[in-house]
Amino acid sequence: MNKLEEYLNAHERSEIHPSDIAKILKQLDDAEFSAAIKLVPKDLIGDVALALPDRYFDDIVENLSVDELKHAVSELESDDQVDFMHELEELDENIASEVFDTLDEEDRKEIIKLQTYEEEEAGAYMQLEIFTAYKNEIVHDVIRRFAELRKSKVIENIQNLFIVSSDNRLLYTVGLDDLLVFDFKKTLLENIEQSEDSFEPKKAEDRENIKDVVHYFEEYDLSVMPIVNAYGILLGRITSDDIYDIINEHATEQMYHLAGVDDDAEEYDEIFRAGKKRASWLGINLFTAIFASMVIGLFADTLESMVALAVLMPIVASMGGNAGTQSLTVVVRQLALGGISKGDAMRIIKKEILISLMNGLIFAVVMGIVAAIWFNINMLGVVIALSMVINLLMAGFFGAAIPLFLKKIDIDPAIGSTVILTTVTDVVGFFSFLALATYILL
Amino acid sequence: MNKLEEYLNAHERSEIHPSDIAKILKQLDDAEFSAAIKLVPKDLIGDVALALPDRYFDDIVENLSVDELKHAVSELESDDQVDFMHELEELDENIASEVFDTLDEEDRKEIIKLQTYEEEEAGAYMQLEIFTAYKNEIVHDVIRRFAELRKSKVIENIQNLFIVSSDNRLLYTVGLDDLLVFDFKKTLLENIEQSEDSFEPKKAEDRENIKDVVHYFEEYDLSVMPIVNAYGILLGRITSDDIYDIINEHATEQMYHLAGVDDDAEEYDEIFRAGKKRASWLGINLFTAIFASMVIGLFADTLESMVALAVLMPIVASMGGNAGTQSLTVVVRQLALGGISKGDAMRIIKKEILISLMNGLIFAVVMGIVAAIWFNINMLGVVIALSMVINLLMAGFFGAAIPLFLKKIDIDPAIGSTVILTTVTDVVGFFSFLALATYILL
Repeated sequence: MNKLEEYLNAHERSEIHPSDIAKILKQLDDAEFSAAIKLVPKDLIGDVALALPDRYFDDIVENLSVDELKHAVSELESDDQVDFMHELEELDENIASEVFDTLDEEDRKEIIKLQTYEEEEAGAYMQLEIFTAYKNEIVHDVIRRFAELRKSKVIENIQNLFIVSSDNRLLYTVGLDDLLVFDFKKTLLENIEQSEDSFEPKKAEDRENIKDVVHYFEEYDLSVMPIVNAYGILLGRITSDDIYDIINEHATEQMYHLAGVDDDAEEYDEIFRAGKKRASWLGINLFTAIFASMVIGLFADTLESMVALAVLMPIVASMGGNAGTQSLTVVVRQLALGGISKGDAMRIIKKEILISLMNGLIFAVVMGIVAAIWFNINMLGVVIALSMVINLLMAGFFGAAIPLFLKKIDIDPAIGSTVILTTVTDVVGFFSFLALATYILL
Repeated sequence: MNKLEEYLNAHERSEIHPSDIAKILKQLDDAEFSAAIKLVPKDLIGDVALALPDRYFDDIVENLSVDELKHAVSELESDDQVDFMHELEELDENIASEVFDTLDEEDRKEIIKLQTYEEEEAGAYMQLEIFTAYKNEIVHDVIRRFAELRKSKVIENIQNLFIVSSDNRLLYTVGLDDLLVFDFKKTLLENIEQSEDSFEPKKAEDRENIKDVVHYFEEYDLSVMPIVNAYGILLGRITSDDIYDIINEHATEQMYHLAGVDDDAEEYDEIFRAGKKRASWLGINLFTAIFASMVIGLFADTLESMVALAVLMPIVASMGGNAGTQSLTVVVRQLALGGISKGDAMRIIKKEILISLMNGLIFAVVMGIVAAIWFNINMLGVVIALSMVINLLMAGFFGAAIPLFLKKIDIDPAIGSTVILTTVTDVVGFFSFLALATYILL
């Protein structure tokens, strides 16, 4: 008996969770996986597939018929249906369209509706299953209707009741904790008017940037947010579990961009796709590295007459690159988290320059002494110290200024800023060191 | 009339949100800020202080008396009280202890209790305000009690009822959506027994690592989680808004560690503190850069006889560093997100080696041709191409192996891995290039 069988036998149906199944599946080898996947309750298989890393998706699809796939999709909530169909299309368009054609008309409509949104739009992340009522309904009736919807599993994980007008515009959000203390015999509106609390909904528009919506969740400590269109018509909701995923994805995207990696390409197990994307960044880096080398080439005569310069030169560039990366990372991250507001640019640049000046001076002294002793040439120490101060200062300035500038012109400050920065620190490092050496030592 | 006054006049008391006040305060200059802070409703000032970036904290405290501070703290939820007192202690221990002494005994006890937890323990993030009931209570009575607690603002943002035994052990978690469809005339236990749903609580222990707790939230799509001690006694709860903050903090920590920056030191506006921490990483980098330079020093004769080598040498190191950082970043991030399970190490290393080999070959050819033409020495092209392949291969291997190894021996894979990696890619880059040049060209 395999581990999954053990788990399924040990738990009642209501206690079985797709994430637990996914955890067990991840530990199995290929043969066990194929056998185990057939044991997963059919109504959970969609959730299990989405809980597993993307690279398992084809293994799951391989082991299922179109009919089973259709069943898996129909059991999912609308936002998850879209994710599942998206994965399926990436894997095999024919199977995807076969599955799509067998779905209920309502599911098909919902999927098409959600697929119209761009990846950065809030609408792309909402689910359409919501609990709504009209303001003149008696609370007792609303609760009875809720019980029925819940029993039939049409809606799950409900925390709010959305009160809409007859043309479906969102009027109020009532938490279930509010609803529970309402007078059940009165209408919703009567209760709302008698209450001291505010039922003004915190809402977002479907075309708003999802990053702004995440900020609303963070600022207002929300666990659910209704999504409306430009006319205020209620469309769906975004829940806290989506927000966890989005926060993680955005942080991943940012880290990857700083390192010259594409987050979409890395998701799958296709080495060629990830490698190609990485190659494009390495290509840019090669280009800038050659440019920096041409700067070195300007001083070929100097290098020929003093080989110590060739030995020490990478230290200046390396220290500048590292100090600059420190500044860059802090500024990029704080820009993303909203820790830097408009008009803050000068404060940030000043801070980074001060830090880099402080550290530049410290390491200039240390490295100056080391170089002077190592090669027994005092003025070599002075040269490397001076160029270290210059390069770290530039590193601090550009480490702060590059992302601030990119943000200002509405470009993602994480993309490309590293390569611009290291070009600066390499070029300034090599040039200042070799030029000073030419001038002072020769 | 300043902007804050406008906002406060335009909104009813129940609609005023601390985050909105914080947003307005951030736009004011120092003089306006002092005037505005006095307008903030006193019961909101604690929340406003916590909603602002840390560097505003002293401006707020300066403008408040001990009595006002006490009032601000007493209005906060327990987890926020601890945060506020922590900030206050950092700022001024005397004021902090004065404020602490004026607090109610219950508040003092709760703060002391929560302060016993380490930063990485789940207990440090919980709030103690929860809604509990015994299993034999009639639902109707429970709801009446809830209404009273809510009215008196003892508990807020409630989504769950926790059912405990007489000795306070957590038995069941009942969502308010469940409670709403219960038979109000029966006891909680009768309702639970008649339901098909599972009320088995998803809980975490107070001493568990908060990172694991965050993973539970993500995996099980939770918006609230009860926290118990080792004996199962219910202590408090963690809510989704805490999880947003923690996910963001952990991602920040990771990015900062990769760049050699300390997240705690950067939080404040003290340039010296942040600079000192950054200096310690730069110091390590200087040490390793000197080591790499000593490797170059081994080939001083070779460099002297062919200055082209000094010009090209940084390209090999730079490409290795960048390719390695790509691998490193992906592996560190996937380790944190749980995308890499145990026994996955070989798959990851293989993948990274393949990608780096693929890109190594491409850029070896490109750079080989460039170098051969640039300096008109064909064998120089062969030398740089060979060393490029070697260094990118090493970069891929170590970029994957370093974080996997650090994780294996229970060290945070983000800390220090960058500096180890760049040491490898610098040393291998310089050594392979100069050794091959010595052997092939001279």
